[in-house]
Amino acid sequence: MDFRGRQKKLRAVLDEQKLDALIVTHLPNVRYLCGFTGSAAVLLAAPRPLFFTDGRYAEQAASQVDGARVSIATKGMVPALAAACAKARLKRIAIESEHLTVAQLSELEKVLGKGIKLVRLAGAVEQLRAQKDAAEVELLRNAVNLSSRLFRPLLKTMRGGAAESAVAGKLEFMARRAGAERMSFETIVASGKRSALPHGVASSAKLPAQGFVVLDYGVVLDGYCSDMTRTVHLSKASPESRRLYLAVLDAQQAAIGAVRAGVTAGEIDRAARQELRRMKLDRFFTHSTGHGVGLEIHEFPRLAAGSDTILQPGMVITIEPGVYLPGKCGIRIEDMLLVTERGYDILTPVSKELLELN
Amino acid sequence: MDFRGRQKKLRAVLDEQKLDALIVTHLPNVRYLCGFTGSAAVLLAAPRPLFFTDGRYAEQAASQVDGARVSIATKGMVPALAAACAKARLKRIAIESEHLTVAQLSELEKVLGKGIKLVRLAGAVEQLRAQKDAAEVELLRNAVNLSSRLFRPLLKTMRGGAAESAVAGKLEFMARRAGAERMSFETIVASGKRSALPHGVASSAKLPAQGFVVLDYGVVLDGYCSDMTRTVHLSKASPESRRLYLAVLDAQQAAIGAVRAGVTAGEIDRAARQELRRMKLDRFFTHSTGHGVGLEIHEFPRLAAGSDTILQPGMVITIEPGVYLPGKCGIRIEDMLLVTERGYDILTPVSKELLELN
Repeated sequence: MDFRGRQKKLRAVLDEQKLDALIVTHLPNVRYLCGFTGSAAVLLAAPRPLFFTDGRYAEQAASQVDGARVSIATKGMVPALAAACAKARLKRIAIESEHLTVAQLSELEKVLGKGIKLVRLAGAVEQLRAQKDAAEVELLRNAVNLSSRLFRPLLKTMRGGAAESAVAGKLEFMARRAGAERMSFETIVASGKRSALPHGVASSAKLPAQGFVVLDYGVVLDGYCSDMTRTVHLSKASPESRRLYLAVLDAQQAAIGAVRAGVTAGEIDRAARQELRRMKLDRFFTHSTGHGVGLEIHEFPRLAAGSDTILQPGMVITIEPGVYLPGKCGIRIEDMLLVTERGYDILTPVSKELLELN
Repeated sequence: MDFRGRQKKLRAVLDEQKLDALIVTHLPNVRYLCGFTGSAAVLLAAPRPLFFTDGRYAEQAASQVDGARVSIATKGMVPALAAACAKARLKRIAIESEHLTVAQLSELEKVLGKGIKLVRLAGAVEQLRAQKDAAEVELLRNAVNLSSRLFRPLLKTMRGGAAESAVAGKLEFMARRAGAERMSFETIVASGKRSALPHGVASSAKLPAQGFVVLDYGVVLDGYCSDMTRTVHLSKASPESRRLYLAVLDAQQAAIGAVRAGVTAGEIDRAARQELRRMKLDRFFTHSTGHGVGLEIHEFPRLAAGSDTILQPGMVITIEPGVYLPGKCGIRIEDMLLVTERGYDILTPVSKELLELN
């Protein structure tokens, strides 16, 4: 991974805002900038970058951290950080305002003293992270491929009467066995009427003999997340159910068709909504169309109505419209895509034909 | 669950500090106070409590929330919250300074306007949560019992050559099948030299034919966490390995023996360290002795050196000293305990004899 190249890009952003340094406390941002994967760390992104962790991670930091000097903070990270800021004569230091808590900021202010100005900065590293480099795209493809390979075997566990949680448990076991570090979020198995819940985490409910099941899951592999949704039907779907399914599929494909570098996130969202409006289903599509994916499951950009964020080549996003009829049923179809100059690569190699399981 | 009783206790804390309300944003605190288990919520703990969530959770909030009026914020939670604060003429409102981010506080300040003073409050709900009520102790016992029942079957998967991640995968599958919602933290399976890592999350490393394996895991059941560690030995342990194991066990039992309502957390920690000092091993015990457990895996109180927090009846804590010889091996033994007036109940019903597996 090109940690030094990433730090250099961040440096340019900080210079532009006349900032001497950024105190990076959000762990995915720390990992992105210097490679450390542990659970306690602060990176002082300054002309001479410094990395702080505690005694538990001395060995791991020595082997992982690239592009920053490692310092083991034996008396707490904030005092160590303050001493380093003073020594390097840093004056205007940014903090990650979307991650640092109010209490942490107070502590920093107290320890740093009056000569130093703390500037609130939002999303600086997240903006960089949105455009994946080639090595990251490779890791994302690996994660997507791993979860995609689990889909067919997963279907074998799905019979009327099986608990949603048993289906999720089987999936998670297969994922671990295939090498996943963990699931990238709580597995959604929402069957029958529960499919109308946009966020129906697997429950103790039993799969019905007939009806939709929304399967939304992902894995983490080498730190990178995958995210996919398929909706299958237990036994034969009625013409009305089939019509609903195809409407969502059309909306998903319309949104995908709109993806390319240079368009706004809002345009992608609108493409999905317009398609559903034609079928008078747009009011049942109650969430946004997608989001970035990378070291975290939800990243910049957000593909929401009205968003004027411009898609860039290298962004990896989900496209996942859904339709939810309260008390009846719901359908969602989700792929991961790489945004390219000319359009997109669909990363998720799993069929979207309506599957009717016996 | 006695949600109204808990809110009443919080009310007393707020009254004492002349606060009109607390904006509760930390989700475990929201759940503790009103029962909601979803992933988007704010509770305005005021004389007339108000609960806010988004459209996805309308149905769930209606069925779960107790002791607060439910409001679905269609235009964002912060504006809805601001309108409610104005309408109720609240003037001094506390925020959870250890959870609210700097950016969230800025947004709140902007929307609330000048007539309202936001007061930074830390740990108010966490302090209440530290002393578990009878219903919570019951749920914690259930979670501990579930994970304890998995220990014996887990040992059967442990043979030289098996990957640590396969052992963890098997454990997590069994946990799911037994009804666990999820694991309470990333499962630690640290074998051979990796046992010297105090935080050795299961890796692709293979179990050696001979040596220690640290197993540290827990489940979530009905929202409550369990946490246990056992260290077993593959094939026969050398006299030196046995000596080390027994030293850690002695330290753990010394710490347990010191537990009762009225003593400080620091005294418990000292009991463990003193025992290890006798064996000249105290410098290899590099973390604190334990922590509270409940809706979160790490809760108040922390059982660290020098802590003057006084143990109260109803606290549920871990006791988990360890010894880590860098590059060689490590041992940790951890139980969960309920603090009582007269002493303690050990919740974890799993033997701590040294197990030598063939």
